[in-house]
Amino acid sequence: MKVGILNITGYGGIELARILNRHPQFKITSVTGRSAAGEQLADIFPHLSELSLTIKDELDEKVDLVFSALPHAASAEKLKPYIENGQRVIDFSADFRLNDIADYEAWYGNNHPLPGHLSLASYGLPELNRESIRNSTLVANPGCYPTASILALAPAMANSLITDDVIIDAKSGVSGAGRGLSLNTHFSELNESIKAYSVSGHRHMPEVVQELSKLTHDVNMKLTFLTHLIPITRGILVSAYAGLNISKLGNKSNASEVIRDVYQEYYKHEKFVTVADQPPTTKQAQGTNQCLIYPTIDTRTNRLIVISCIDNLVKGAAGQAVQNANILFGFPEDTGLQDLALYP
Amino acid sequence: MKVGILNITGYGGIELARILNRHPQFKITSVTGRSAAGEQLADIFPHLSELSLTIKDELDEKVDLVFSALPHAASAEKLKPYIENGQRVIDFSADFRLNDIADYEAWYGNNHPLPGHLSLASYGLPELNRESIRNSTLVANPGCYPTASILALAPAMANSLITDDVIIDAKSGVSGAGRGLSLNTHFSELNESIKAYSVSGHRHMPEVVQELSKLTHDVNMKLTFLTHLIPITRGILVSAYAGLNISKLGNKSNASEVIRDVYQEYYKHEKFVTVADQPPTTKQAQGTNQCLIYPTIDTRTNRLIVISCIDNLVKGAAGQAVQNANILFGFPEDTGLQDLALYP
Amino acid sequence: MKVGILNITGYGGIELARILNRHPQFKITSVTGRSAAGEQLADIFPHLSELSLTIKDELDEKVDLVFSALPHAASAEKLKPYIENGQRVIDFSADFRLNDIADYEAWYGNNHPLPGHLSLASYGLPELNRESIRNSTLVANPGCYPTASILALAPAMANSLITDDVIIDAKSGVSGAGRGLSLNTHFSELNESIKAYSVSGHRHMPEVVQELSKLTHDVNMKLTFLTHLIPITRGILVSAYAGLNISKLGNKSNASEVIRDVYQEYYKHEKFVTVADQPPTTKQAQGTNQCLIYPTIDTRTNRLIVISCIDNLVKGAAGQAVQNANILFGFPEDTGLQDLALYP
Amino acid sequence: MKVGILNITGYGGIELARILNRHPQFKITSVTGRSAAGEQLADIFPHLSELSLTIKDELDEKVDLVFSALPHAASAEKLKPYIENGQRVIDFSADFRLNDIADYEAWYGNNHPLPGHLSLASYGLPELNRESIRNSTLVANPGCYPTASILALAPAMANSLITDDVIIDAKSGVSGAGRGLSLNTHFSELNESIKAYSVSGHRHMPEVVQELSKLTHDVNMKLTFLTHLIPITRGILVSAYAGLNISKLGNKSNASEVIRDVYQEYYKHEKFVTVADQPPTTKQAQGTNQCLIYPTIDTRTNRLIVISCIDNLVKGAAGQAVQNANILFGFPEDTGLQDLALYP
Repeated sequence: MKVGILNITGYGGIELARILNRHPQFKITSVTGRSAAGEQLADIFPHLSELSLTIKDELDEKVDLVFSALPHAASAEKLKPYIENGQRVIDFSADFRLNDIADYEAWYGNNHPLPGHLSLASYGLPELNRESIRNSTLVANPGCYPTASILALAPAMANSLITDDVIIDAKSGVSGAGRGLSLNTHFSELNESIKAYSVSGHRHMPEVVQELSKLTHDVNMKLTFLTHLIPITRGILVSAYAGLNISKLGNKSNASEVIRDVYQEYYKHEKFVTVADQPPTTKQAQGTNQCLIYPTIDTRTNRLIVISCIDNLVKGAAGQAVQNANILFGFPEDTGLQDLALYP
Repeated sequence: MKVGILNITGYGGIELARILNRHPQFKITSVTGRSAAGEQLADIFPHLSELSLTIKDELDEKVDLVFSALPHAASAEKLKPYIENGQRVIDFSADFRLNDIADYEAWYGNNHPLPGHLSLASYGLPELNRESIRNSTLVANPGCYPTASILALAPAMANSLITDDVIIDAKSGVSGAGRGLSLNTHFSELNESIKAYSVSGHRHMPEVVQELSKLTHDVNMKLTFLTHLIPITRGILVSAYAGLNISKLGNKSNASEVIRDVYQEYYKHEKFVTVADQPPTTKQAQGTNQCLIYPTIDTRTNRLIVISCIDNLVKGAAGQAVQNANILFGFPEDTGLQDLALYP
Repeated sequence: MKVGILNITGYGGIELARILNRHPQFKITSVTGRSAAGEQLADIFPHLSELSLTIKDELDEKVDLVFSALPHAASAEKLKPYIENGQRVIDFSADFRLNDIADYEAWYGNNHPLPGHLSLASYGLPELNRESIRNSTLVANPGCYPTASILALAPAMANSLITDDVIIDAKSGVSGAGRGLSLNTHFSELNESIKAYSVSGHRHMPEVVQELSKLTHDVNMKLTFLTHLIPITRGILVSAYAGLNISKLGNKSNASEVIRDVYQEYYKHEKFVTVADQPPTTKQAQGTNQCLIYPTIDTRTNRLIVISCIDNLVKGAAGQAVQNANILFGFPEDTGLQDLALYP
Repeated sequence: MKVGILNITGYGGIELARILNRHPQFKITSVTGRSAAGEQLADIFPHLSELSLTIKDELDEKVDLVFSALPHAASAEKLKPYIENGQRVIDFSADFRLNDIADYEAWYGNNHPLPGHLSLASYGLPELNRESIRNSTLVANPGCYPTASILALAPAMANSLITDDVIIDAKSGVSGAGRGLSLNTHFSELNESIKAYSVSGHRHMPEVVQELSKLTHDVNMKLTFLTHLIPITRGILVSAYAGLNISKLGNKSNASEVIRDVYQEYYKHEKFVTVADQPPTTKQAQGTNQCLIYPTIDTRTNRLIVISCIDNLVKGAAGQAVQNANILFGFPEDTGLQDLALYP
């Protein structure tokens, strides 16, 4: 299958290139890159010289699948012809993630470029939404934080085990902020420092509420969502806290085991979710499409605590996109995604 | 004043040495170090060669003040004669922090070596407990996490602005784990990774509950407290979340400003607490005795969010110990503690 | 092919497991680990749980190939029966690298456990020694520093372009120091610091001299070799400096281009050496079996400067071992080794 | 004394502010900052809020001393009136470091803004040039690399112990690249990576040759100087290699001790140079004005090896500037510079 990538020159784009290079079914045949048109990809990213690709202004061939790693707004605009042609499209941006245009416009600050096409999109979190993706031609690849957050709470939510009282404290490596230049990605400012950011509200929050809310009618989630920047390159660790409907857990004395069983049951057929025996670390997911999840109970307060870890560029972006592509084309879902973690 | 340091060879001890070296009133005259007796301090720590100290088995001179940087249990045992003599003592360990021996024994797993002396101790968080410290000879220097956590929530707690629903998500640099050898401090394991630890309960939790509970009778705090290890050397960032008694805030529309005013009023005379205008970073406190605090409100959920940052080895250990020492001897509280942050 | 790994629990061992897991021809069927016998590999390394291996005291099955990731001396002792049986063996340790036993004993400080078997061994640097490896059953996998150093200077040495005056300044990430506990691998000691170590002589030096000296009779290399520890996990960058036989370069004005051509010609058939267009960074090799080399000339002093980069755990250890295994069994040399760099 | 700082908003400027804040004799009364005029310093750098300074377009008061932390060319232009008025000036830039204008213009690529004033300047490395500084009003503060490099080799050079064959392999933290935005300071690009840069020649090289050449007529140094970027914030480690006039060392068997004695004798009165007993690490100098030097001999090749470490922002910039200011005004040279290292 021929693949085109819009804006390969960001971190999402080059990670996609890395993964697809080993994929037996997809071949990258055409790529664009903002402000780098005409350049060889190898000149910008020597580690990708094996791909021998020239960056173009436009995708210049008939491709079977288009990935867009463009930022929001620009992405929907550029994808318009492909969507209207009914070509298969996977969009890394937020443009097609939110069902409610008002939400989109409130959080992203621009009019939606293609409001009429929103209903065509499927939210590309396969573990919750596989059938919808399979029958779709437009997949909205989830945000990195929402991927880790939704997977962390879905089993509890779907089983109505938690109350509306939910806090997600998320910690991310710096590659999530992209390759753009800013004091927010300046080495000397970030290194040896921890900071909270987007304290008044992060754009990924509404995705989390939207998708989790679909899982139950019992809970109207009251979510506080706070993001932190950590001086590592890759990795997200989410610590989720929720009030517990302890009555639903039966015998309180082994509530942690019960919760654990609920999680294992929920994800028992999933190749990319591991319910871990011990609290996971982001390094254990480095370079892989895995989401590692550890649920437990704070028995002093009857709160659910869930730790989840992903590599933000893989399960949080390019790997999940390839997982979605495999679904779209009927390939085994882990095709090209079988690497173990690069550890240490 | 002559100062003795028990166990100078850990990170708390050498940080104390660094600070006292510039203190105009205290002079280190005698030091011990576990398993390093007989060695020159300069041979183990070349950066301290200016101090010209030999590590001894026992403090060998009459000193006016003893700092103990020994671990719990060992600390109380070694301090016994000094306490019984009525000498001034500042203990970095947890031995004299908890008022309830049962709590101590449950969390630390050993019998308390000096239960009869517990009542002599003052909890050494000057911002909440200054008068008690001044009149004490035995100061229990707070833990690093409790320092950042208690200061983050004290104004809200003292003003009964929050409900019992409190979550503290704390992130710490690695120096808090000490200089001992363990996979928990191994570079290749920690670097480029984030992990939660002590997920079933961290020893610092009861201190936080104990001290905050003293500030009000209105709230019986239901605290979930989770700690994370971040690959930086120094720094703690605490993200505290609490339900808000929104009725107490008057006009809800400017609740964040009201909260901010409450915090500024509460700390207006404090030299080492800064209520920040923007979310602080741990780097802004690096090498200083400052606690930087940023309170705000999640208006979608009516929760209080407070971010606080300290250098865990300074305000979280040695700097606070010197602050306490200044109080004990009637020196200005910031004597020897005026450094600005080492930034970047 | 069935593969056994002696001492899988170090970083060399688990990196080998990561690579072999994707190898279509080799299957790990038996593993040992010092002091972890009886444990599941997944309990120690959750990221390897897919392998479902139990750590044994001894390799318990007939295997077609043995990799030893044991330290020197222990490795030769454990490998003795396999070597004597004529089984194929690849040894990560230094035991079979040095041709001269006196050198070995001087640098490693122990008697050689199997001096009579030394002559059976082939030095496992395929780019210089492919035929010898192919005909061997005992491959001494090179050290990480020697791999980067020898490849950096081989073309110049083989073409007699340099004088005897050679300095190698090598910088390594911390994973090269292994998983053992020591202040040399303690996060707070290493992080945010640079240090030179083994200043009086590093054990990898004689390998470099031995192998480079085989390439020419014209130069009796006078090598100074200094190693530095850098606070990153993976990666070695070698900066090599050598006096230049400028007369051999013909037209001095384009000497850098001539040198570059010499290097490209020398490595033109090599899949794992890239003569780079711009100075490479270790990150460009992260997770790959590539050695990136950039030769240039300091025209003010007529010295050759060569920069080379590898991932110390891949081309510097486990990847090169798999490359050697492919040669031993006649598989294409890059089987299982085609990953692009994990970048950023 | 009233002090003005031109361009306080870079890392050199804020480090100077940090140091001067504790200096008993100097008070910062006026500051400028490129493109930040009108802002409060505290808004850009919250850790400096104690200074209560407003950034102006021009220094607005009569000051006794002007520090310029402007980049080259801009610095000389801005300093012109102060120099012509005979005011005391300390310039962080390269504008007044090189005696030969042709050298300056070749390496910096611009015409010198004030060629007629070059002869007024003194090269501000107090350990080699103290008297000249004392009698000067215009001090050219040395570059960070030259400071570490010149101090590393000066004793050997002054005693004619080395040949012309000199290689300096320098490793620097990222703060040396300033606060400007560039892929060269982008966290995700630098973190977990090592790279050589300015491989065809670094601007700091001619300073090193110029100043070392003044120490002897015996050697016409043939210097190769290569710089590397290391993912730490602060610190430079220089590894210097030089051929040895072994005949000058007398008894060869204890040549390392002889060299060491030469170094200790040379620096015996210096407060900011420590000839270390063991190879130093950059962390041991963090936050201090110290240069730690370890000379030794590679006995296999008769080469001198010298390791030197500084904090590039202190002894490599702002600390050395304050040291120079103390000399200019006759204060004890370590006034305001007595901090021990922030370790770990």
